[in-house]
Amino acid sequence: MTLLADLLSTVFDRRYRLGRTGRQDDRPIEALIGALMSTTGEGSGLTVAHSLLSRYAEMDDTAKLAFFHYLASDMNIDAVKVRDALEAYEADQTKATYRSFMQAVEPPRQELVRRINQVPGATGALVVMRADLLRLGRGDNALQALDLDFRHLLASWFNRGFLVLRPINWGSPAFILDKIIAYEAVHQIDSWDDLRSRLEPTDRRCFAFFHPAMPDEPLIFVEVALTRGVPGSIQDLLAQSRDMIDAEDADTAVFYSISNCQEGLASISFGNSLIKQVVADLSVDIPTLKTFVTLSPIPGFADWLAGQKISVPPEETERLRSLAAHYLLDIKRADGLPRDPVARFHLGNGAILHQTHAQADLSDKGLEQSCGAMVNYLYDLGKVSQNLERFAVDHTVAASSEIKTLAAAAQKAAA
Amino acid sequence: MTLLADLLSTVFDRRYRLGRTGRQDDRPIEALIGALMSTTGEGSGLTVAHSLLSRYAEMDDTAKLAFFHYLASDMNIDAVKVRDALEAYEADQTKATYRSFMQAVEPPRQELVRRINQVPGATGALVVMRADLLRLGRGDNALQALDLDFRHLLASWFNRGFLVLRPINWGSPAFILDKIIAYEAVHQIDSWDDLRSRLEPTDRRCFAFFHPAMPDEPLIFVEVALTRGVPGSIQDLLAQSRDMIDAEDADTAVFYSISNCQEGLASISFGNSLIKQVVADLSVDIPTLKTFVTLSPIPGFADWLAGQKISVPPEETERLRSLAAHYLLDIKRADGLPRDPVARFHLGNGAILHQTHAQADLSDKGLEQSCGAMVNYLYDLGKVSQNLERFAVDHTVAASSEIKTLAAAAQKAAA
Amino acid sequence: MTLLADLLSTVFDRRYRLGRTGRQDDRPIEALIGALMSTTGEGSGLTVAHSLLSRYAEMDDTAKLAFFHYLASDMNIDAVKVRDALEAYEADQTKATYRSFMQAVEPPRQELVRRINQVPGATGALVVMRADLLRLGRGDNALQALDLDFRHLLASWFNRGFLVLRPINWGSPAFILDKIIAYEAVHQIDSWDDLRSRLEPTDRRCFAFFHPAMPDEPLIFVEVALTRGVPGSIQDLLAQSRDMIDAEDADTAVFYSISNCQEGLASISFGNSLIKQVVADLSVDIPTLKTFVTLSPIPGFADWLAGQKISVPPEETERLRSLAAHYLLDIKRADGLPRDPVARFHLGNGAILHQTHAQADLSDKGLEQSCGAMVNYLYDLGKVSQNLERFAVDHTVAASSEIKTLAAAAQKAAA
Amino acid sequence: MTLLADLLSTVFDRRYRLGRTGRQDDRPIEALIGALMSTTGEGSGLTVAHSLLSRYAEMDDTAKLAFFHYLASDMNIDAVKVRDALEAYEADQTKATYRSFMQAVEPPRQELVRRINQVPGATGALVVMRADLLRLGRGDNALQALDLDFRHLLASWFNRGFLVLRPINWGSPAFILDKIIAYEAVHQIDSWDDLRSRLEPTDRRCFAFFHPAMPDEPLIFVEVALTRGVPGSIQDLLAQSRDMIDAEDADTAVFYSISNCQEGLASISFGNSLIKQVVADLSVDIPTLKTFVTLSPIPGFADWLAGQKISVPPEETERLRSLAAHYLLDIKRADGLPRDPVARFHLGNGAILHQTHAQADLSDKGLEQSCGAMVNYLYDLGKVSQNLERFAVDHTVAASSEIKTLAAAAQKAAA
Repeated sequence: MTLLADLLSTVFDRRYRLGRTGRQDDRPIEALIGALMSTTGEGSGLTVAHSLLSRYAEMDDTAKLAFFHYLASDMNIDAVKVRDALEAYEADQTKATYRSFMQAVEPPRQELVRRINQVPGATGALVVMRADLLRLGRGDNALQALDLDFRHLLASWFNRGFLVLRPINWGSPAFILDKIIAYEAVHQIDSWDDLRSRLEPTDRRCFAFFHPAMPDEPLIFVEVALTRGVPGSIQDLLAQSRDMIDAEDADTAVFYSISNCQEGLASISFGNSLIKQVVADLSVDIPTLKTFVTLSPIPGFADWLAGQKISVPPEETERLRSLAAHYLLDIKRADGLPRDPVARFHLGNGAILHQTHAQADLSDKGLEQSCGAMVNYLYDLGKVSQNLERFAVDHTVAASSEIKTLAAAAQKAAA
Repeated sequence: MTLLADLLSTVFDRRYRLGRTGRQDDRPIEALIGALMSTTGEGSGLTVAHSLLSRYAEMDDTAKLAFFHYLASDMNIDAVKVRDALEAYEADQTKATYRSFMQAVEPPRQELVRRINQVPGATGALVVMRADLLRLGRGDNALQALDLDFRHLLASWFNRGFLVLRPINWGSPAFILDKIIAYEAVHQIDSWDDLRSRLEPTDRRCFAFFHPAMPDEPLIFVEVALTRGVPGSIQDLLAQSRDMIDAEDADTAVFYSISNCQEGLASISFGNSLIKQVVADLSVDIPTLKTFVTLSPIPGFADWLAGQKISVPPEETERLRSLAAHYLLDIKRADGLPRDPVARFHLGNGAILHQTHAQADLSDKGLEQSCGAMVNYLYDLGKVSQNLERFAVDHTVAASSEIKTLAAAAQKAAA
Repeated sequence: MTLLADLLSTVFDRRYRLGRTGRQDDRPIEALIGALMSTTGEGSGLTVAHSLLSRYAEMDDTAKLAFFHYLASDMNIDAVKVRDALEAYEADQTKATYRSFMQAVEPPRQELVRRINQVPGATGALVVMRADLLRLGRGDNALQALDLDFRHLLASWFNRGFLVLRPINWGSPAFILDKIIAYEAVHQIDSWDDLRSRLEPTDRRCFAFFHPAMPDEPLIFVEVALTRGVPGSIQDLLAQSRDMIDAEDADTAVFYSISNCQEGLASISFGNSLIKQVVADLSVDIPTLKTFVTLSPIPGFADWLAGQKISVPPEETERLRSLAAHYLLDIKRADGLPRDPVARFHLGNGAILHQTHAQADLSDKGLEQSCGAMVNYLYDLGKVSQNLERFAVDHTVAASSEIKTLAAAAQKAAA
Repeated sequence: MTLLADLLSTVFDRRYRLGRTGRQDDRPIEALIGALMSTTGEGSGLTVAHSLLSRYAEMDDTAKLAFFHYLASDMNIDAVKVRDALEAYEADQTKATYRSFMQAVEPPRQELVRRINQVPGATGALVVMRADLLRLGRGDNALQALDLDFRHLLASWFNRGFLVLRPINWGSPAFILDKIIAYEAVHQIDSWDDLRSRLEPTDRRCFAFFHPAMPDEPLIFVEVALTRGVPGSIQDLLAQSRDMIDAEDADTAVFYSISNCQEGLASISFGNSLIKQVVADLSVDIPTLKTFVTLSPIPGFADWLAGQKISVPPEETERLRSLAAHYLLDIKRADGLPRDPVARFHLGNGAILHQTHAQADLSDKGLEQSCGAMVNYLYDLGKVSQNLERFAVDHTVAASSEIKTLAAAAQKAAA
């Protein structure tokens, strides 16, 4: 099967890359759009689509806004046509009336984006375009509606079935590693040496999702430490001086950092799939692993404490652990979901609140956002579906008995 | 960049293939569909989607028909909801009302198919599912409407930008070559030796489009002969005894066979893109190539002659050439397009009617369908867009002066 | 590490292949040899070496013989120089005298062959050259001595450490499979369908050794069947109608065919390494495998029976099994090694005589050479070293108790 | 052909790597050597060879010296046996007497090294072993003789025909790039950013030779700048602020740094082959390139000036250029070869002294060793053989007329 890897490399060949064409097509952007929408048959609009992307790449924000507004207004659905098509379909449900209905209800801008995507390499450019749209469209109803069309198409193209999980290691191409450094969002990577210390040791792993149409760009990645026992401190976990262990001596895999890489794929979620796939793969490759946990920040904890007028010095470790457990288990938003965003993510994936730790992240950021506290979420593949179901249905938070005891103690103390 | 080929091979790893799971989920198919549609968040429905595909794979036609009818009726749009959502959107164009509209106008079966496609390897299974639907749904309005949804999704996923062009040669994996033998639709491949004679010689090429999610399956392929001058006979072109030439001594590339491989991708066209891409690639790789032509059958010729009560023995080569030119250039369907389907394809791609030949295909099939006549369509990349445009706008058929002269002679003779 | 596969593909790039050069160098072959030997520094003789190989490729047998005789006589050691260098070294053991000694004792033809081998792709040509030498040099003392030089160099270059074990399967390139069909020496492969039946089923495997400098050419390959229990008949093993099993349901791996591919590598043995490596790899990949055996022909059996004036009809299965056991266990050559060549190979590798079977190979060849009998040799990795040692030291044949009992019965009957 | 890349990756699979075995074999090293030499047949000594390498890896210098002395004395040739074998061969030139002669004249330590090399991965370990030998054996006749055996075997294994040229770029695995930073010997690479500036720009290239048995280790690499015109200053060439150009706009390829990576391959020369291959490859890939030159240091220039009591301030650029031309063209060693080592290398490869430059390398090292002067050597593939031949025969230095004029001016000034 690996022979086919070769089959696929072609798509990434420079020959087909954006930026190859000769002369610029300098018709107005609306004319280019018109030309692309009018072309008949597959392939015929490739050159126009290419020109359109080149032009977009050179636009400033004002021009981009104008472009987006054009899509939002001039390429929107036509309510009259929708109503007519619906009525015709209701009157006589045939292939023809259904086709007319499908055409009427889909705004032409969706077809435009699909046609742009015919250009090899365009997918990445469209992801960047959506990032622009998200940034520029805030608070604008028409642009936010337009974003729903982008999101719809990208969600279909970045379907889990098309994603490829790949290990990232010290043998990965430098240009990929470069991006890992740039995109790391949780515990900053300071240098290539720092990066190497997260990739090369026998007790470290890193995995990323890629899409075949954007092979140079990781979509999301997770950093994993292999340990004996569940760790309670990120500084110990990342210490250069720690004793490395052999992978087969580890019993625990710790997901200590998960970073999304593409702003243009916001709200198209990969994290759940990534974690599940990595758990499944590591289980096969390192059969000694029995426990899969995170070591996660509690980004809203300090804020909440402040709101409660509670002040706890980092040394009061037990009190911090209790309060953190209470915050994560009991404090909810108006919609009944946990107030903490990281908790919402992992609990929404079916994880269990496993353990809280004080003095676990003594970095400036760690102290500031969570008074140094951290938490382990436990992924027990046998219970993930059930947890996820309950959390979805009635927001039940799965938690270990220790967490529950700690949380109860905090509530009691507060009472 | 080729380093990334490796990144992609994972998707095809057996670990992720269909068919790996343990126990069968034996709930009714409607319950499986319900479970898949109800799950929240990405990834959570993977197991259910997998079960659904396994179940489908075991269905007989009756069960498949029932399944399709369920999708067609129970998972169709709800006209009332569409109308309500449309009115709400008209009243107040916000992100929320647009989202509701989008949800209302899309039949839930589209989301079902997208969720099934989350399973790695599912794309191929869905292509097969659509082939079943096309076969079983003939003449049934509801199923034909359902097919429009399948077609819509597959067209988006098999977007030109996601396809990969790859050479097929004597170093290709045997299981791919096996399929080339099976799918060849124009000039049958009789054996592995016959196949080898089309792939191994220095003056032969073959190219196919692949999709990253179906790496074992060519989607469409074209066989090419490198020649000196434009050939006028398929038996000469394929003769085992011909003199091979070095690629760099050729001035002409002849596309002598184009075959679609996937019935489930019917009416999602790749041929135009394939030919253009191959022309572009060969131009770069073999700079001596100046002419790109087909050597094509004229499948409707004999039928038309019969309809005209014209009978021409194969020996009357000039008369046959004239009549073939006349048939291809002048004989149209009710909609104004050429009567010959192969002519419609190539002229629709922007090719030029270049030359007709008699005694060019003396196989049983060739004699039967076209009295042994064949035709070259010429691909002149500099004129393709213009030809294509004119053909699309007013059905103008681009033709060489020789063809025009021949056709005129035939008309005169007929008059 | 697989990223480096790409690093290596270059060596096989057509650009560097033999046959690329422009004009022919038409100096006499001795002049070419002289030019190649005189050139100074690495690389400088590449063009000459290339010319020499091209010239050789066009020679008929007479010219080849002349070429070999030139190497054998004109490029032999010079006894006077050897003696002088030896004396100088004995008198004063310095780097300089040792270097002179090394130069004197090595015939210049060795350096010639090494210089020819600088041409990328030359290694395969030299293997073919040695095959010619073996064929043409029979009975000629000087050419047989020359062959020792070839053998010396090839043995060093085809060192086990440089060989690569690769699975051969239905995804292998067709040009490799072509060679598997051609080289199969034990149980002939009749067609591509026959080949497929040995490669594609879940209970079949095939492995070959390759050398990085001859990537298109397998050196030796072994065909393996995965079974439940030790099989006693090749026709059952290869029956198209047999029930396939899943690999993980097998407990036994049966090596039923081992074929050397390169005559020019005669007496450079890979078989032992191949079997050991395959046993080691299969043990890791399919942990359920417990038994590794061959199902081997007994090529000298019928001959020996005839010499003994023993005639046994195939139906007397017990008698045949006994006689085969006796033949394999007890019948020796003058040097004390088993008379049967296949027995010498497997016992020399440390295998155990495990079981004999009658009516096990009912093909013409099987009936003719061994009255239909076959034998299993058992590879027990834990005992291989010890068996091999004993066999090397005093020719002790390791055998199962059943074989010993059968052999004793035969001897008794003969007495 | 690229499909075969995959065939080769196996050799590098961790499964087969050194260091995998279980228990240590703690017999004395002489016993291990004895065991390895006594084993019969291929493959059987693999475990012993492995143990021997593991033991060596743990030795300190004293133990290594003892090991080398054992090889040098106990595994040396036996003069008596050589003389006997020679006489027997002279008396009767048969295959048998020649084989005895071959065995007698080759010291057993060569066979030992070959047997060690059977272990996959051993080649790299043997290269390191030779580096130790070179370091520890200085001034010791017996060890220097031993080194000749190592060199003989390694030269045969690192034959040009087995080497693979590969581009090194920003997509190369980080662990390879790491080594490029470490091994750069001419113009130090300060950081990953510095490295990137030599690899990523469109007008930079880097190529290395690899050996299939040491895929993680470059053997030698060359850094190339693509320029318009021949550059005369390394600081301009490497300036971060320079204007990049597209590869196809370049007319000149400048080899500005060549670094050998493996001390254990000392005096086994790859540089000539590397340059020729890179020139050949670049000519094909970038047809606009017309000139291939180096920009080289003149390491012996300042020393020679000092010896001549000549002192030139860097500002006297014309005088420096003249003196440098004179030094390179006219100043010879006792053996008639140029005094400058870099000149010997490039002239010995067939290059031409093309141009000298003052203020060309203003780094500390550049000022110190050559008063800031540098030189271009020109590689004109059409004249390389002829230059090389003449240089080899009578040490004629090929030089441009400008160099000759400059050198003459310097001589005149000196007179």
